[in-house]
Amino acid sequence: MQVASGFWTSKVLLSAVEIGVFTELADGPQEFEGLAARLDLHLRSAKDFLDTLVALGFLERSGSWYCNGAEADLYLDKEKSSYIGGALEMANARLYGFWGSLTEALRTGEPQNETKNSGGESPFAALYAEPARLKGFLSAMSGLSRGANQRIAQMVPWAKYGSFADLGTAQGDLAVQIALVNPHLEGIGFDLAAVGPAFEEYAKTNGVQSRVRFQAGDFFNDPLPRVDVITMGHILHDWNLEEKKRLIAKAYEALMPGGLLVVYDAIIDDDRRKNAFGLIMSLNMLIETPGGFDYTGAECREWMKEAGFRGVRVQHLVGPDSMVVGWKP
Amino acid sequence: MQVASGFWTSKVLLSAVEIGVFTELADGPQEFEGLAARLDLHLRSAKDFLDTLVALGFLERSGSWYCNGAEADLYLDKEKSSYIGGALEMANARLYGFWGSLTEALRTGEPQNETKNSGGESPFAALYAEPARLKGFLSAMSGLSRGANQRIAQMVPWAKYGSFADLGTAQGDLAVQIALVNPHLEGIGFDLAAVGPAFEEYAKTNGVQSRVRFQAGDFFNDPLPRVDVITMGHILHDWNLEEKKRLIAKAYEALMPGGLLVVYDAIIDDDRRKNAFGLIMSLNMLIETPGGFDYTGAECREWMKEAGFRGVRVQHLVGPDSMVVGWKP
Repeated sequence: MQVASGFWTSKVLLSAVEIGVFTELADGPQEFEGLAARLDLHLRSAKDFLDTLVALGFLERSGSWYCNGAEADLYLDKEKSSYIGGALEMANARLYGFWGSLTEALRTGEPQNETKNSGGESPFAALYAEPARLKGFLSAMSGLSRGANQRIAQMVPWAKYGSFADLGTAQGDLAVQIALVNPHLEGIGFDLAAVGPAFEEYAKTNGVQSRVRFQAGDFFNDPLPRVDVITMGHILHDWNLEEKKRLIAKAYEALMPGGLLVVYDAIIDDDRRKNAFGLIMSLNMLIETPGGFDYTGAECREWMKEAGFRGVRVQHLVGPDSMVVGWKP
Repeated sequence: MQVASGFWTSKVLLSAVEIGVFTELADGPQEFEGLAARLDLHLRSAKDFLDTLVALGFLERSGSWYCNGAEADLYLDKEKSSYIGGALEMANARLYGFWGSLTEALRTGEPQNETKNSGGESPFAALYAEPARLKGFLSAMSGLSRGANQRIAQMVPWAKYGSFADLGTAQGDLAVQIALVNPHLEGIGFDLAAVGPAFEEYAKTNGVQSRVRFQAGDFFNDPLPRVDVITMGHILHDWNLEEKKRLIAKAYEALMPGGLLVVYDAIIDDDRRKNAFGLIMSLNMLIETPGGFDYTGAECREWMKEAGFRGVRVQHLVGPDSMVVGWKP
């Protein structure tokens, strides 16, 4: 029953982010009636809503005064650079509804998002076509990836390398995190042209704009930057098997000899019975893409070896995410 | 992120019940390809879907053979009398979608189900109007209530009493569970006339039709049966404060002197910071009813004392459910 009613709990948090509860409370505790008024909540259920957030640990309450829990304050206040709520905003605005058609997706093998019934339109063309939707998606990707990106900035032996390119960089959070921790590196964020302005703004906000630049391109049809390290975060799972292999082969070709490919996703355990999040993310690729799927570490190792990479290994990053790393002889 | 993505996990289970995975596997293990074909699953994501159910513990897998986990087999196989999946079928067919409008409900205080924009139509009139929707709702209520009903059949001192009436009885699971454990009792299931046939069939299936009978009526406008014990399971939370008090007063009036009122719901802890399920159930009453809300044990004790009940106490049943019991002097 807990799993079955999980959508209730989930939707309460998603609505709280939409309504801006945690941003409103970032400046300090507020008393119930004023808070409900400022959040424009009808009094019928405002107390149940806020007390649910207390019971779930996102808010704290003392008497009738509410304040943010520590984690909610850090990650769900829109004004903080540590905000990851973009992922929740997108889940609320897009995925919650699309997932209502999961059964249809399972029956037909067809996506259920904006591209539904479009006859195989690229999901990214659809996402990138509207500026507001693009902005939401980019911010969502940063939110989903922040933790893993910070680990990669630490775990890869960056001291040995001078340049990197992040393919499908979106807002550029991975490039930014790497550059912040490794001041000797110069990096490129590579993505479709529509992403450029958001990338450049984000690099500037983080003070790395002198070492991290944007390069517009389609990673299937344009040449890739020639660098020491190529990264792909939450990219490979968007594509079908043939496209995955094509991307890995193009990365191999573009890398300098001795260079590294770093691929990460919510990589599924080889026996496919532990990483429920990775398996469900693969179902999210069903909802969102014509042929994408998530994969096991063993599968990715095999594809990378086939492309010529050596020393290919899987390393856990954080939560459900792992990276697969190999070098070009 | 786990809470935020909880709707994914939830929807996978709800779709599995809709598709009939656990009913299909009730007769024994099946190999992947035959199972996917019998369930009419597209091969693109069938393995991800089934392996997600493995990772969540609802299925087990040995090689490419799948079988039901023990709990899924007991509670989610439609052919077993222990089936509680009606609640999941209703969540899938109705509530998942309605909860997509939670933010609107919080802003307006208005329900978001079939009665949306109907100007305050009774939610039960809408639910009961269509036979298929009624059947789904009744089976859902049995699924949601079974565990608590079985506890009540044991915990109340039934030996002291001879007759009972269950108000808002739906399919009659509480009446049936009480009658099964207490062969000396005679009981009445009281609900709107549309429920009669489903009640009588359910009593017969459980072999208690000689001691448990249906009485058609509207508990606000018709006289209640005169009995020793009145029960109301997941009823009081459907109504606004004035209606709650009216129901309690009518129960007091109908009971024999010395008789008991037993009310149960997902009763919220008095400090409103622990029973998240009870608080969320109250938000579900926002989605489903014009004025319903869940309540704390202290609130319910107060209403019952005001009506004249004595010895009023709260006792935990199972999971989020507790009962409030009082006697009429």
